[in-house]
Amino acid sequence: MAIVLGHNRYGKAETRLVRVHRDGDTHGLVDLNVSIALAGDLTATHLTGDNSGVLPTDTMKNTVYAFAKQHGVGEPEAFALLLARHFVRTQGQVESARVSVESFAWDRLGPHSFRRRGDHTRTATVTVTRESTQVVSGITGLVLMNTTASEFHGFVRDRYTTLPETTDRILATAVDAKWRHLGDDADWDKSFHGAVDAMTGAFVNTYSLSLQQTLMSMGTMVLTSRPELAEIRLALPNKHHYLVDLSAFALENENEVFIAGDRPYGLIEGTVTRDDVPPATTEWYL
Amino acid sequence: MAIVLGHNRYGKAETRLVRVHRDGDTHGLVDLNVSIALAGDLTATHLTGDNSGVLPTDTMKNTVYAFAKQHGVGEPEAFALLLARHFVRTQGQVESARVSVESFAWDRLGPHSFRRRGDHTRTATVTVTRESTQVVSGITGLVLMNTTASEFHGFVRDRYTTLPETTDRILATAVDAKWRHLGDDADWDKSFHGAVDAMTGAFVNTYSLSLQQTLMSMGTMVLTSRPELAEIRLALPNKHHYLVDLSAFALENENEVFIAGDRPYGLIEGTVTRDDVPPATTEWYL
Amino acid sequence: MAIVLGHNRYGKAETRLVRVHRDGDTHGLVDLNVSIALAGDLTATHLTGDNSGVLPTDTMKNTVYAFAKQHGVGEPEAFALLLARHFVRTQGQVESARVSVESFAWDRLGPHSFRRRGDHTRTATVTVTRESTQVVSGITGLVLMNTTASEFHGFVRDRYTTLPETTDRILATAVDAKWRHLGDDADWDKSFHGAVDAMTGAFVNTYSLSLQQTLMSMGTMVLTSRPELAEIRLALPNKHHYLVDLSAFALENENEVFIAGDRPYGLIEGTVTRDDVPPATTEWYL
Amino acid sequence: MAIVLGHNRYGKAETRLVRVHRDGDTHGLVDLNVSIALAGDLTATHLTGDNSGVLPTDTMKNTVYAFAKQHGVGEPEAFALLLARHFVRTQGQVESARVSVESFAWDRLGPHSFRRRGDHTRTATVTVTRESTQVVSGITGLVLMNTTASEFHGFVRDRYTTLPETTDRILATAVDAKWRHLGDDADWDKSFHGAVDAMTGAFVNTYSLSLQQTLMSMGTMVLTSRPELAEIRLALPNKHHYLVDLSAFALENENEVFIAGDRPYGLIEGTVTRDDVPPATTEWYL
Repeated sequence: MAIVLGHNRYGKAETRLVRVHRDGDTHGLVDLNVSIALAGDLTATHLTGDNSGVLPTDTMKNTVYAFAKQHGVGEPEAFALLLARHFVRTQGQVESARVSVESFAWDRLGPHSFRRRGDHTRTATVTVTRESTQVVSGITGLVLMNTTASEFHGFVRDRYTTLPETTDRILATAVDAKWRHLGDDADWDKSFHGAVDAMTGAFVNTYSLSLQQTLMSMGTMVLTSRPELAEIRLALPNKHHYLVDLSAFALENENEVFIAGDRPYGLIEGTVTRDDVPPATTEWYL
Repeated sequence: MAIVLGHNRYGKAETRLVRVHRDGDTHGLVDLNVSIALAGDLTATHLTGDNSGVLPTDTMKNTVYAFAKQHGVGEPEAFALLLARHFVRTQGQVESARVSVESFAWDRLGPHSFRRRGDHTRTATVTVTRESTQVVSGITGLVLMNTTASEFHGFVRDRYTTLPETTDRILATAVDAKWRHLGDDADWDKSFHGAVDAMTGAFVNTYSLSLQQTLMSMGTMVLTSRPELAEIRLALPNKHHYLVDLSAFALENENEVFIAGDRPYGLIEGTVTRDDVPPATTEWYL
Repeated sequence: MAIVLGHNRYGKAETRLVRVHRDGDTHGLVDLNVSIALAGDLTATHLTGDNSGVLPTDTMKNTVYAFAKQHGVGEPEAFALLLARHFVRTQGQVESARVSVESFAWDRLGPHSFRRRGDHTRTATVTVTRESTQVVSGITGLVLMNTTASEFHGFVRDRYTTLPETTDRILATAVDAKWRHLGDDADWDKSFHGAVDAMTGAFVNTYSLSLQQTLMSMGTMVLTSRPELAEIRLALPNKHHYLVDLSAFALENENEVFIAGDRPYGLIEGTVTRDDVPPATTEWYL
Repeated sequence: MAIVLGHNRYGKAETRLVRVHRDGDTHGLVDLNVSIALAGDLTATHLTGDNSGVLPTDTMKNTVYAFAKQHGVGEPEAFALLLARHFVRTQGQVESARVSVESFAWDRLGPHSFRRRGDHTRTATVTVTRESTQVVSGITGLVLMNTTASEFHGFVRDRYTTLPETTDRILATAVDAKWRHLGDDADWDKSFHGAVDAMTGAFVNTYSLSLQQTLMSMGTMVLTSRPELAEIRLALPNKHHYLVDLSAFALENENEVFIAGDRPYGLIEGTVTRDDVPPATTEWYL
């Protein structure tokens, strides 16, 4: 029996980059949070502290900023690909580079003036190895609500079940989703906005008998409308809105007054996939 | 010498209310976080635990939900006034009621479908006593950036000063502001949006030599355009964006690549006021 | 009528300082978050962007680090005094300097090894003007619980009151408190630990009929045991623990199983003071 | 080609349970955050909203509270096992139940009085299927620092590398770790505290040439001292402490004054495992 090193990786997390594109008087603004993780044969540094195969994480940070100048920064997927390919190409010891990007949107107020939006964060996670390139796009923090058109009944009842059935409830969630692209070249912006529009539309237009049904509808609509995507994973918290019992005050609450609960919450997680696509080349997680 | 009770108050904080207005098929949605604090002669409960003058905070919560049903919920200032007046009017021992409301905006996606915005939180703080009513409106989390049109130079230099002067820098802030109304009756929505538009416009259009100058410009524009307001208090963090030194990579950074810093940050706080208005009837804080 | 500048101040917030004292092989560790705010005649920068009276906030940050080297860092109150006095003494335009410090405690694991504690944050807020010096110490994030010895009954009932009376409940709070010293010289560490022990002891040993009674007891015990203190302000959230109704499962819940609620929460705020002390020289807030 | 449902699960997340054990006058206190996720054949609810195979997440919450009363709550692993086995045993449609528990420690102040510790959170994640039981324990938020005995040099240099080599730096991290047990029966408390002591001791006693070396040392020490464990996964952020350049003030900084940085940070992730243990029966993640 021996104790050995298993899977490992390392990198610089959360490098905060703001890139201003100064094309004449009208500036462009890109606001990213970039995390890099490299894997390869890193046994030496783990066993003896021999760092001869270790590119410093500080260098990864420098590379983010230098590339932002040299190449500009466009779509998050494209910038992540640029970085990930660089590390695999230039560092012989690196077998896999994963670059994750959070992108924060700003609304334009003037030629060089902006207001930060806060309604969602766009994400991109790119993994490049010698043999493969995998692009995953995503969104987090997209909070949606239907104030009706949601029922929940016909469920299992055991001795601990007290939940009444309902034919009219609020359905609210904060969408956390990622989707895998079939290729490594696309109109990333168009694809992202198309996917978000599809899932939002499905949420709005699905008469829901369960949040699972809504999840399936959202995933299906994304894949139906975006042929460039292989699969999508969604984690949908059921943000409970509890109907307040006002009967003690001789008031009837006809689905009008709700407590917005913090915890606990339901959590519905599911993958929707095409049945004829190649599997992911590297593991990925929502 | 004796040890005595000084200023005190108590109440229920952060009651989360979602109110759906079901006027036909098109629903309205109000999403609030309500905090209540009552003051009066509360000596007995402090000294002996005699609660005969203590309305339970649980009752305050119930009142929020019951009033939401009975009266509906419109503008946050109006709902806060309704609640604050109720406690002073019905509870003889209550000398002062302060109701603070955070309001979260949602964009409409359909007749009963909504997406939460995240670009700011609207606030209202109402204080009612037997003699006075004071309404303060505000905003928090409004993040603004100019990528140019900001300089900083001519400042004091002492032996610890190393900051270079600059004639072109990013100016970014997260506006935290509150403003006091002269009266207790207004078109609160119009006033709020007018104030926010005024301060945003001032931020955008002020060629800035210091964040203090921008603050003064924002406050002045709000008061100039909103005659119903007496004074405004602003706390503007200077969200530093550090120019990255790329010279080691033989790259010149012409105000294009920035580190978005977390901490430390500058913090500029100031009040802008009309010089002929009555003072606040109760202390209030940003 | 004119629109004019009112109260204002500015400074550098949240400068994160770690100071290692290397006295032989056994190192000392101080971990602080320092915020500085200066006030004086700052009209020029507000009105015209003339910064000739503005010491850069960057300089304040530098001063924190330079002083940490030159003077070492001991008690947070002492370091705050050193900084505040420096700005008032050396900057003629500065009329008031407020230095606020958060101090994070670490447990020693070895001569140069430490584990961060997380059970509270110690605070110090010093305000120095040409005429006065005021020292306020405090604590935040101290979470205390009694699982019994707490009742709540005899309270006001109105038409919105549904809360049952109880003679046995959990009482839990997260102490947020600040206390004002009479002088500007003390054994700050001893005073802090004495005050915290006193308030903790009072929480533990008070059979509570209301959280107000517990607050008064805590404040009184602090002032009784610490003659160097003038007054104390406490904000005590009532962290509700709701008894779970298990009757549907034929189980009786004899004060054993509770939901730890997030929101809403009660909030009890009060000042306890000696009746013969001079008033604060500058306003301060919890 | 078809669009189909892939992996999925659902449950109630973050049920906050406080359990008081009233054994005479001396009370015991357990403070948990429980998350449950069930998997099985859930196709119907996804495709048609047929919930005949869906146990409500509300029932899972009820079960947590009812079991807390019926069985008491001891070690988090044991309580998680009890819950997970219950769902698999009683719900024919459930093929896998994962119960994750966060446990918050409190220090005793008296027979029924407690102060919450904040120096770490203990975790347990149990996955039960018809064929297997897997227990994973862990810790998060354990912040450790060595103020010396850490070097970093001999690393790869490319054109973007500017980091100077160092033979004396601060090494600080916030340990996030999980470890897999070989069996489903153990003295869980003893195992947890033994593992934490082992990793803390390894951090303290390893003269570090890289955080990877420290990680390997920590993992090795845990497995060496705890024969009941199969493998451990660690994610160690390198919490950078930047030496402040004080040369502009004619001061030398001999590793005494540091900026505690927030972002970016290095992130070192690695698994340490015995080479002769059976693989995990279900995937698990740090």
